[in-house]
Amino acid sequence: MKPSCISLMTDFGLSDEYVGVMKGVIASINPYAQVIDITHQIMPQNILQAAYTLWFSYAYFPKNTLHVVVVDPGVGSDRQIIALKASDYFFLAPDNGILSFILNKFQCSAVRIDRSEFFLPNVSDTFHGRDIFAPVAAHISKNQNIENFGSIISSKSLTTLSNTGPYVKNKQVIGKVIMSDRFGNLITNISVKDMNQISSKDDITIQIRDTKIMGISCHYEQVKKNTLLAIIGSKGLLEISVNCGNAKHELGVEIGCQICIK
Amino acid sequence: MKPSCISLMTDFGLSDEYVGVMKGVIASINPYAQVIDITHQIMPQNILQAAYTLWFSYAYFPKNTLHVVVVDPGVGSDRQIIALKASDYFFLAPDNGILSFILNKFQCSAVRIDRSEFFLPNVSDTFHGRDIFAPVAAHISKNQNIENFGSIISSKSLTTLSNTGPYVKNKQVIGKVIMSDRFGNLITNISVKDMNQISSKDDITIQIRDTKIMGISCHYEQVKKNTLLAIIGSKGLLEISVNCGNAKHELGVEIGCQICIK
Amino acid sequence: MKPSCISLMTDFGLSDEYVGVMKGVIASINPYAQVIDITHQIMPQNILQAAYTLWFSYAYFPKNTLHVVVVDPGVGSDRQIIALKASDYFFLAPDNGILSFILNKFQCSAVRIDRSEFFLPNVSDTFHGRDIFAPVAAHISKNQNIENFGSIISSKSLTTLSNTGPYVKNKQVIGKVIMSDRFGNLITNISVKDMNQISSKDDITIQIRDTKIMGISCHYEQVKKNTLLAIIGSKGLLEISVNCGNAKHELGVEIGCQICIK
Repeated sequence: MKPSCISLMTDFGLSDEYVGVMKGVIASINPYAQVIDITHQIMPQNILQAAYTLWFSYAYFPKNTLHVVVVDPGVGSDRQIIALKASDYFFLAPDNGILSFILNKFQCSAVRIDRSEFFLPNVSDTFHGRDIFAPVAAHISKNQNIENFGSIISSKSLTTLSNTGPYVKNKQVIGKVIMSDRFGNLITNISVKDMNQISSKDDITIQIRDTKIMGISCHYEQVKKNTLLAIIGSKGLLEISVNCGNAKHELGVEIGCQICIK
Repeated sequence: MKPSCISLMTDFGLSDEYVGVMKGVIASINPYAQVIDITHQIMPQNILQAAYTLWFSYAYFPKNTLHVVVVDPGVGSDRQIIALKASDYFFLAPDNGILSFILNKFQCSAVRIDRSEFFLPNVSDTFHGRDIFAPVAAHISKNQNIENFGSIISSKSLTTLSNTGPYVKNKQVIGKVIMSDRFGNLITNISVKDMNQISSKDDITIQIRDTKIMGISCHYEQVKKNTLLAIIGSKGLLEISVNCGNAKHELGVEIGCQICIK
Repeated sequence: MKPSCISLMTDFGLSDEYVGVMKGVIASINPYAQVIDITHQIMPQNILQAAYTLWFSYAYFPKNTLHVVVVDPGVGSDRQIIALKASDYFFLAPDNGILSFILNKFQCSAVRIDRSEFFLPNVSDTFHGRDIFAPVAAHISKNQNIENFGSIISSKSLTTLSNTGPYVKNKQVIGKVIMSDRFGNLITNISVKDMNQISSKDDITIQIRDTKIMGISCHYEQVKKNTLLAIIGSKGLLEISVNCGNAKHELGVEIGCQICIK
């Protein structure tokens, strides 16, 4: 039998024992589960970053992977924990918008996780990752029928984030920087399809603050070292980079900064 | 056969190849062992932090897990390496106090690791994690009888840390901050049981430096955003937090800072 | 059947989803592969650091491990991706010098990876880790015959780094700091064999900037706390350390700093 796969994404970091303990709980219940970390360095409580990161990752995992996301500022309050079956994947997360892009794209079956016999015996007020998410994930990975773990609900009732996409105004596409990565690449929410609404890829101008970049490069080394470029990155989105350098530091911009294309 | 589980905790960090090499050695000897990281970000040579982190983690792993802790300022000197069987778990660590809480709580069988046929052929002076801990751990995970790996010794002879608990004075519980986490939560050494010695949970006052917090919250969102609160955290200990914020930065306190409860 | 082992080393860091996605791709193709991280914190685009780290790590893994290194400033350009069979191991990396030490030491079979039926269907310009390295690695781990994945080439044609070793001048060995680790240990490119060219280990003087260290210690605790020492580290190379301290901060030196021995 193939191992069943569980991916983990949290804002717990790797300095504390939190992630290790979650994996200990999973291994106690399903020693055959294959656990893969997406990242644990989501900025604390940053639901939007987690939603994007999940969206850019989920489809590269084996079919039937259970993606578990614990970025959960509402832990211990009455926010719900939900499981989804969508496309060929399963998802387990708090109902706080993390699953927005999945919910918007796919027809989903949804369950509110409320059968406490699958939780650890003593549920703390602050660490549902260990006490609820990990044991429920391990049980789902053995059973793969989310309906056994709670009450069926309408996916229409679930929380989604709004205003995440770019828009067109005066023949310009107005988007924003949604993430930066370790290399200082600035990832925008503007896709090739968005750009095609106003122009061909070749005679495009990208403006970020006072800086203008002409045209889209095909790879980093197409420009000189330490030079700014625009490129279609691995997520299919426009990215601003510096060849062998760091665009985030170079431009001094933060997540949310506006990008304008004409 | 279920995979046998080895947990790893070190102060090696993740920037160097040290942890990866330990896992390579383990996989060479027991390719079926399941290795789970607790954390590798223990502050360099911080034995107390490692002791607490192990104490808060070990019981969430599968029974018979071997917990390996390498925080080892005495590497290469005549400090001993010991294996313990305690409760339903195994432990492998230098004899420097890391196992204090385990030794204080459980009746333990102890072995001094001295059978060099289980070490790598060339033992360096500086990296026993690779040359001794990893190969011995892999062999124990196959054999699960620690007596095969060295001389039986009395667990009474082993190093333990002192003054780790809080105390009561003038009807106040005096404790301290023992850890902080990625969210800036300040974890104290004061348990619910300690607090019950002087007061009921409801009309308690917590003082840290000049700041007073009244009462214990049940979850973070019980107070407004960016507001201090006290809460019983997931370790069963009193924690000082800021809802959607960072108590460590807010209060500017360090590990060891005194906490006073009345 | 034993799991086949794949090691991963990149400069992707752990904050982004890049490493997790590579593991998802591998698990999709070979769910039985055992993936072990060497490190993902190679400094961005630092080929020399990656080459050294691989050299110090590869031999501690199970025979037939496939070592995958993605430090790849030329991604998307016409640089080649190569697979090697050398000694008892396999290697997959861009042809940019990362494999220098392997190529210099062993007789190698080499293949240029060019059979795109083993790539993901849509290859991006910026993330060959996901689109080429991960799927090819997973297929090699199932097949273990690199000749199936591209054209045989001469290993003599591959890129190697030069001037990596120390040299002798005026009865002194002149080397340099090649790495520092989390503890601030300064690792040099000077081996015991290099030192034996000029002196016996006992009456040696090590000079780094204006600081002189007399003799080689056997372990850290041989000197007082917070005192500088020289020691033969776990890589068989001379290291400069501070007992319970940080030599890198103490001396304020960077990678590349000259070390002189007489």
